[in-house]
Amino acid sequence: RDDVKRFPFNNLVETEGQGCLISRNGGLKYFGEKIGLYFAWLGVYTQMLIPASIVGIIVFLYGCATVDENIPSMEMCDQRNNITMCPLCDRTCNYWKLSSACATARASHLFDNPATVFFSVFMALWAATFMEHWKRKQMRLNYRWDLTGFEEEEDHPRAEYEAKVLEKSLRKEYRNKEVMYTEKEKLTWKDRFPAYLTNFVSIIFMVSIFKYIYKINFTGIFHKGEKSFYKILSNNKSFLGSFLFTYWHLIFTIIFFISEVPKTDKSFEERLIFKAFLLKFVNAYTPIFYVAFFKGRFVGRPGQYVYIFHSFRMEECAPGGCLMELCIQLSIIMLGKQLIQNNLFEIGIPKMKKLIRYLKLKRRRPVDHEEYMKKKQRYEIDYNLEPFAGLTPEYMEMIIQFGFVTLFVASFPLAPLFALLNNIIEIRLDAKKFVTELRRPVAVRAKDIGIWYNILRAVGKLAVIINAFVISFTSDFIPRLVYLYMYSESGTMHGFVNHTLSYFNVSDFQEGTAPKEPMELGNQICRYKDYREPPWSENKYEIAKDFWAVLAARLAFVIVFQNLVMFMSDFVDWIIPDIPKDISQQIHKEKVLMVEVFMKEEQGKLHLLETWRDKDKRKGENCNSHSPRSSMSHRGSVSSCHSCHVDV
Amino acid sequence: RDDVKRFPFNNLVETEGQGCLISRNGGLKYFGEKIGLYFAWLGVYTQMLIPASIVGIIVFLYGCATVDENIPSMEMCDQRNNITMCPLCDRTCNYWKLSSACATARASHLFDNPATVFFSVFMALWAATFMEHWKRKQMRLNYRWDLTGFEEEEDHPRAEYEAKVLEKSLRKEYRNKEVMYTEKEKLTWKDRFPAYLTNFVSIIFMVSIFKYIYKINFTGIFHKGEKSFYKILSNNKSFLGSFLFTYWHLIFTIIFFISEVPKTDKSFEERLIFKAFLLKFVNAYTPIFYVAFFKGRFVGRPGQYVYIFHSFRMEECAPGGCLMELCIQLSIIMLGKQLIQNNLFEIGIPKMKKLIRYLKLKRRRPVDHEEYMKKKQRYEIDYNLEPFAGLTPEYMEMIIQFGFVTLFVASFPLAPLFALLNNIIEIRLDAKKFVTELRRPVAVRAKDIGIWYNILRAVGKLAVIINAFVISFTSDFIPRLVYLYMYSESGTMHGFVNHTLSYFNVSDFQEGTAPKEPMELGNQICRYKDYREPPWSENKYEIAKDFWAVLAARLAFVIVFQNLVMFMSDFVDWIIPDIPKDISQQIHKEKVLMVEVFMKEEQGKLHLLETWRDKDKRKGENCNSHSPRSSMSHRGSVSSCHSCHVDV
Repeated sequence: RDDVKRFPFNNLVETEGQGCLISRNGGLKYFGEKIGLYFAWLGVYTQMLIPASIVGIIVFLYGCATVDENIPSMEMCDQRNNITMCPLCDRTCNYWKLSSACATARASHLFDNPATVFFSVFMALWAATFMEHWKRKQMRLNYRWDLTGFEEEEDHPRAEYEAKVLEKSLRKEYRNKEVMYTEKEKLTWKDRFPAYLTNFVSIIFMVSIFKYIYKINFTGIFHKGEKSFYKILSNNKSFLGSFLFTYWHLIFTIIFFISEVPKTDKSFEERLIFKAFLLKFVNAYTPIFYVAFFKGRFVGRPGQYVYIFHSFRMEECAPGGCLMELCIQLSIIMLGKQLIQNNLFEIGIPKMKKLIRYLKLKRRRPVDHEEYMKKKQRYEIDYNLEPFAGLTPEYMEMIIQFGFVTLFVASFPLAPLFALLNNIIEIRLDAKKFVTELRRPVAVRAKDIGIWYNILRAVGKLAVIINAFVISFTSDFIPRLVYLYMYSESGTMHGFVNHTLSYFNVSDFQEGTAPKEPMELGNQICRYKDYREPPWSENKYEIAKDFWAVLAARLAFVIVFQNLVMFMSDFVDWIIPDIPKDISQQIHKEKVLMVEVFMKEEQGKLHLLETWRDKDKRKGENCNSHSPRSSMSHRGSVSSCHSCHVDV
Repeated sequence: RDDVKRFPFNNLVETEGQGCLISRNGGLKYFGEKIGLYFAWLGVYTQMLIPASIVGIIVFLYGCATVDENIPSMEMCDQRNNITMCPLCDRTCNYWKLSSACATARASHLFDNPATVFFSVFMALWAATFMEHWKRKQMRLNYRWDLTGFEEEEDHPRAEYEAKVLEKSLRKEYRNKEVMYTEKEKLTWKDRFPAYLTNFVSIIFMVSIFKYIYKINFTGIFHKGEKSFYKILSNNKSFLGSFLFTYWHLIFTIIFFISEVPKTDKSFEERLIFKAFLLKFVNAYTPIFYVAFFKGRFVGRPGQYVYIFHSFRMEECAPGGCLMELCIQLSIIMLGKQLIQNNLFEIGIPKMKKLIRYLKLKRRRPVDHEEYMKKKQRYEIDYNLEPFAGLTPEYMEMIIQFGFVTLFVASFPLAPLFALLNNIIEIRLDAKKFVTELRRPVAVRAKDIGIWYNILRAVGKLAVIINAFVISFTSDFIPRLVYLYMYSESGTMHGFVNHTLSYFNVSDFQEGTAPKEPMELGNQICRYKDYREPPWSENKYEIAKDFWAVLAARLAFVIVFQNLVMFMSDFVDWIIPDIPKDISQQIHKEKVLMVEVFMKEEQGKLHLLETWRDKDKRKGENCNSHSPRSSMSHRGSVSSCHSCHVDV
């Protein structure tokens, strides 16, 4: 299709720095700076993902390499010390052997090893570097696209706002009988407050509802204790959640639409984006947060489980630990949702709509449609295309992905790789879509990517603390360290698994909760993953000292990690100047040059003016000096004539 | 002195917004924008201190009001349960009654109550607000002083730098026989590395040495266990420290001077400032950090104390707890160092020097000196004055004070008040000094306060985490909460003191460490402030579960506090726009206006040009059209003449 020929995007987007390339081959002129910036940003982001994914792969490989030296998983796997674990649900579930969790234990080592700690630090710094790099790139583009001087002019108040203001002022007029200018009138926080309240409440409500939904456990109902089932379940749940959430999403978007009355279109858009992002964020991450920080945390202990509605027992993590589930979820999202779903929809839906329109058109005039099409103008054909819906969904998708790459990178080092693969496709699909599937968007100038930058920063900051928590609470990194330096006699990890498991006397089960099949004879003890006093201690099943020690260590790690990483990324932020040196010098030089040129020209003008003036004066003079002489001579001649007359 | 009459600073500095006032009454013209900004900043800071100090007073009063409801201190005070405490040092010290620490306990409640937690949150937000407020003020001043367009022109490389570069390039030339431009030559990180290394090492060294000095304990040597002595001691120590440090300070400043070769004067100054600040910071805060976080933390336990050099026992806090000592130190610094010392020196030293110079002068010409002085010029008299040393010391003092106000405000709510009092004097003294005691400084233009702003930000950020630690580790806030919600049967604080004290059996003292006077008969148990197992438990004197629980709670509090406060201050940072709306609008309007005016003028010029041109053309025309007619008439006249001749 000759659009593509006119704007060869597809080979353009392969290379980096779309922005400038677009500008080179006219695409920028066609799409405007705003879209140019989007592609430039996408390019920078994709570039930056390359090193991240390389390091990620290395970390993953390190995990693969060291999986056989990993003593805890080895201990879990060997059949000799086959530990009987307490059932994972009431009655229906049965006692199970720890060695049956061998596979997951080995797998979870791939993601739960010291290297991931390093990697999450690396990614935090990566994020900081990325932001800085983009700032610089932006400056470069601003300079190249001649936006340095450009600033958004006052955009006009939105119609809705003016209406509101007018109405308010009228009300006031009505109240106190004096007439006042609507121009003077402004919406104060009093007018806005209810809107803010709605937002706040709705967001709170949303978040809470989901914490809640996700805490309910269906294990007791339709779960027979196979691990495979677990995954399906958790995924089901996340999908259910997403579904429900997209639903809420709509509702609240509408609420947000009507609730607030920002002054200008720009601020309106920004607020909308911000809120939409909040919703999408909660939508996208709730299942993951749940698995990472809540699932299996508040289950109570055997014989005294925590119940919701007195019937649903809190869900426990698979024997491999919550980290494994987190990885599975993330990989499903990154692969399934990101790679397939998004891109499929992105390219598929417009194509479909187009087809529908096309068919409609065809039905309307079935006769010699082709000929008609032939002699049609470009814009007539383009009219069939989908109208341009704005960049928000594009950015949104990318930033949610950025979140996946940064927020939970501690538990899934391959995220950057998947993101990279996704973007390599994404960037082409977007370009193709923009060129061939959508009507030409109105070209808009823009200096920067607006609020998205702030959102990126916020995500980057959030990533630090979340990674800290993932490492210290979701993974077994800290307990291992604590065991190694506080409890281990041999100074090795041997006996770690045994140390993390508490003892439970089967006779202490509440009636009705014990599994149907009894244990093998002679054994009254089953184990469960917690730090509690054994049944034979005086205060049995109480939280043990070890628990508090480990907890303290975990929290200490969070503090150290967070502050260290924050300091480092602030440092990165500080040492990399926002404006590239060459650009700033260039700008300065040009400024000086311009002033010079201007001055010269001014002087030129003045000079010209003077020359004209005095030239003119001179002309004037010899013009005046001319005419009197002539008249003189005239008189002279006359006199001579007279004289001659006289002579005669 | 008529300087003052010419620049009535003294009544000027009373009012806020020095900057603009200076500009109004010509002071700005006299001192330049840089100093103007300093006074403006000082003004804003002092203003902002007013609310802070008010809230601080309220918090303090709250402490005073609730001192009698405070159960822990009451328990400590009442004689009925007089607990025998273990001696605070080996042999020389004796057992002592807890009730003897009643006074300090009551006093420490003044600073260690729930209100201080609120206050430290408040102060963190206050700091954020202050930064924002200053940014806006700065913009305002930039606008009012017409600096909006102004940017520092490239300042020239320093002579030292050029020398270095030249030398390097020569070396290169020498190596490979080709000649190269010294302009092209630049100092790479390789050239700078040694310098950086020196700095790094020296700083590390400094910090370490002081951690070290402060850990030594003189208790065993010349301390008889009076509380009064303690204070003197700690103060002595801090003074000793300060002394030693100022000494180091000099050395390292010199090292810094020679070590690095920054390119421009500006960057040179900035680096110097930064390093000087680091030193001053360490210098000023080490004793306080020591008292807040290290003193009495690593003392070991009775019968197994920690010793340095096998002879010095680690110092313990006074019975009132470390917080009280921290308060005393802070108040001494704020009152003594800040209020008296600084201001005294600041005004005193220049006066003294001036006097000396004056006397010198007088000695040189004793005869009719007065008459001589009288007929002297202003500048001649001013020559006696002290030369202007730059603003660095002024800023430094203020920012160290800012540190005291923000960093440890959790332990000393009156700090802002003292700071306010200090500044009210400071601001006058500075003004007076600048006007009357110093030679006129070279007026320098400046857009902002430069690196000081970054330092302020850094201090503000640091304050959050430090306050978190002070609240959770130095004060008893968290242990109290833990006791209240985990251990207390009655749900009140009764029994808290007893809960925080562990038991020690006197018979377990190492030989030679037990106090000379034995205990009263029948009592074999003394208590010490720690969470350890009692002598009668199977693993006696081991760290108890409670310790870990409290530690976990403390760390959890730090995380929550830090992240909450950081989020809030980021939010404050975000909602307050950096540029005041009116100013930005004004600037925009003026820009538009200027463009218009310029265009008009240009048009005017063009118009003028055209008018001149065609006027001139017209003139030219009717000049040319004139002469032919005249000549014609001439000829005509001649012909007529001829004709008349012919006629004849």
